[in-house]
Amino acid sequence: MRVVYSEKHERHQPRVFVYRGQIVDTPENAVRATMIAAALGGAGHEIVAPADFGLAPIRAVHAADYLEFLETIHARWAALPGAGPEVVANVHPNRNMGRRPEGVVGLVGWHTADTACPIVEGTWEAALASAHAAIHAAELVLEGANAAYALCRPPGHHAYADMAGGFCYLNNTAIAAQHLRRRFDRVAILDIDVHHGNGTQGIFWTRGDVLTVSVHADPAGFYPWYAGYPDERGAGDGLGFNLNLPLAQGSDDSAFLDAVMRGLGAMRDFAPAALVVAAGFDTHERDPLGAFKVTTPAYRELGRRIAALEIPTVIVQEGGYGTAELPENVLAFLAGFETR
Amino acid sequence: MRVVYSEKHERHQPRVFVYRGQIVDTPENAVRATMIAAALGGAGHEIVAPADFGLAPIRAVHAADYLEFLETIHARWAALPGAGPEVVANVHPNRNMGRRPEGVVGLVGWHTADTACPIVEGTWEAALASAHAAIHAAELVLEGANAAYALCRPPGHHAYADMAGGFCYLNNTAIAAQHLRRRFDRVAILDIDVHHGNGTQGIFWTRGDVLTVSVHADPAGFYPWYAGYPDERGAGDGLGFNLNLPLAQGSDDSAFLDAVMRGLGAMRDFAPAALVVAAGFDTHERDPLGAFKVTTPAYRELGRRIAALEIPTVIVQEGGYGTAELPENVLAFLAGFETR
Repeated sequence: MRVVYSEKHERHQPRVFVYRGQIVDTPENAVRATMIAAALGGAGHEIVAPADFGLAPIRAVHAADYLEFLETIHARWAALPGAGPEVVANVHPNRNMGRRPEGVVGLVGWHTADTACPIVEGTWEAALASAHAAIHAAELVLEGANAAYALCRPPGHHAYADMAGGFCYLNNTAIAAQHLRRRFDRVAILDIDVHHGNGTQGIFWTRGDVLTVSVHADPAGFYPWYAGYPDERGAGDGLGFNLNLPLAQGSDDSAFLDAVMRGLGAMRDFAPAALVVAAGFDTHERDPLGAFKVTTPAYRELGRRIAALEIPTVIVQEGGYGTAELPENVLAFLAGFETR
Repeated sequence: MRVVYSEKHERHQPRVFVYRGQIVDTPENAVRATMIAAALGGAGHEIVAPADFGLAPIRAVHAADYLEFLETIHARWAALPGAGPEVVANVHPNRNMGRRPEGVVGLVGWHTADTACPIVEGTWEAALASAHAAIHAAELVLEGANAAYALCRPPGHHAYADMAGGFCYLNNTAIAAQHLRRRFDRVAILDIDVHHGNGTQGIFWTRGDVLTVSVHADPAGFYPWYAGYPDERGAGDGLGFNLNLPLAQGSDDSAFLDAVMRGLGAMRDFAPAALVVAAGFDTHERDPLGAFKVTTPAYRELGRRIAALEIPTVIVQEGGYGTAELPENVLAFLAGFETR
C-alpha cells in the first residue's frame, strides 16, 4: 500500500505534559512515527513525502482564527513575562462562559481542550505536514487508488474545528474526509482508536454527508470524559449521522471486533462512496494508555473486514503508544486490508 | 470592627500551581491571612473564631454533588495510579461537551475551572472554615451589627455553584449574601477585587433579589478571561441585576474610585437592605498579580464611601497577594469604613 509520511513531525517534541498533577513525558513521542516508518519501509511499502497542498483544504475543516492561533501563538507566548518554553493552558472557558478574549493566556485556553496539547516552536510545521500527509493520501484515492495510508504525527481526531486537545492540533481524519468530498457524495469515518474521536464528531456534528462512527472506551471513565456517549447522534442535518459505540475497559478481541462490525453495519445503510479509517492502535493489550486487550492478529482481521466493504479508503494514523508491537500492529492491519 | 477568622486555613497550602506552562509557587499562600490577622489584632480589632454552621448555609449556594466532590476527591485521587500529591485538572469540558463523567480525572475537570485551584488533603477543612467565617460575619450583621469583617482564606469569588477556580473553592461572598437573605429582602454585592467576581455572577445570574456589581481589570486581557464583560447583565428574573465595570490595566486611584462610585450609584437604585463587599486588595500598586495602581490611602477613602451607604455590611476578604502593604491596606479600608 502507498504510504505518505513526512519527517517534519520531528519538529514537534514537547516536554511539558501535565498529567494527574505532575509534569511527565508525553507518550505521543516522535519515535512512534519513526518506528512505524522504518517497519513499513522494511516490509516493502512504498513511502512518499506529502506534497504541499497549502491551507485551503485545511481551512475547509478548521476555523480561520484557530489556524492563525496555531501558527502564531508560540511566538506571542514566548514574549509573555515568566512564560515556560511551551504553550500550555492554565485556564479554560467553562459552561458559564462564552467569550473569546484578546490576551495570550486566555486565547490558549480558548483554543485548547486540555494540557495534553503543548505547543512548541515546531508544532505548526509538524501539524501542517501531518495534515498534508492525510490530504496526499486522499488525493491518491481521488486519483483511483483503492486505498492509501497516511502515517500522520501529530495525530488529529481530538482536534475540533477551533480547538486542539489530546495530542492533536489539526484533524487529519476530518481533513481527509472533507477532501474526499470533492469527488464522493457521501463519506464515512470509522474511528477505531481507543479514545472517542470527539473532534471529528464535533466537526461533522450538523452534517448528513459525512457519517462518523467511533468505537472506543466508555468516556465515563476514560479520556475525553465529556463526550463519546451513545446518545450523541448529531444535530440538524447531521441528526442520526454520528454513532458512538463505547465499550467497557478490558474489552478483548471479540468485543472489539463485534463493535466494529456493528459500526460497519450502520455504515452499509449509509452507503458511503468513500471511507476514512481513523486508525489508532492504543486498543492493543500492551499499550500503556490502552484500556482494551486487543491482540496483534485482531488488527489483521480488522483490516480484512474493513477492506471487505470494497470502497475507496484512506487510512489515517491516530494513537498507539510506547510498545514494541506498534509497528507490527500497523503492518498487520495493512496486510489484512490488502488481502481483499 | 468585629473580625471573624479561623487558623484552619493553614491546612490548605498547595504547591502545584501550573502557570504559564510551569509549576510555580502559588501567590495565594497562608502568610497572606496570618499577616492580616496579626495586624488586625495589633490594631485592637476584636477577632473571633467562626462557629460551626454545618453545611446547610453552604448548600443554599453550592450544588450537592460539588460539595461531595470537594470533600472526597483528594482521597479518590490519591488512589489513582501515577497521581501527584495534589488534585490538579489536566482536562476540562469545553464548548462542544456537556456530560459529567464518573471517573476521577474527568470529575476533577468538571468541577474545576483552571489549574489555580489545586486540592490538598486539608483543602476541604480550610474552605469550610473560611465559609463559616463568612457566615459568622453575616450572623453578626443579622443580629444587629452595622458591619463585620470575615478574614476568609481560601478566597471565594471565582467559585461557581459547582466549580472551583482561581484559588477559590467555596464562594464565601455568595454564601454570606445568601445568609443575609434570611432577614433582608434585597442584598447587594460589591466586588472590588482586581479580578472579575465570575463565580458570584454565575451563582446569582438568574436572580433579581441579589444585585451583583464587580469593578475589575478588563477580562479581554486578564483572568478570568471569558467572563466579566459589560454586556453580561443577568438572565430571566436576574436580567439587569448584574453589573460589570471593567477598567483598563494601569488604572489609578481616580479611575478605580470613579468606577466604584458608578457601582454604588446602581446599587442605590436597587435599594439593598444589606451589602456584602468582596474585598480584594490585589488592585494595589505593588500587588504582584495586580493590574491597577491603587494606593493605600485610596482604600481608606473607599471604605468611607461604602460606609456612607449606611446599610448593614459584611466585608469578605478575597484576593491581595505578596506585598508588605496587604495588612496595611485592609486596616486602611476598615478604618475608612468605621469613620461613618
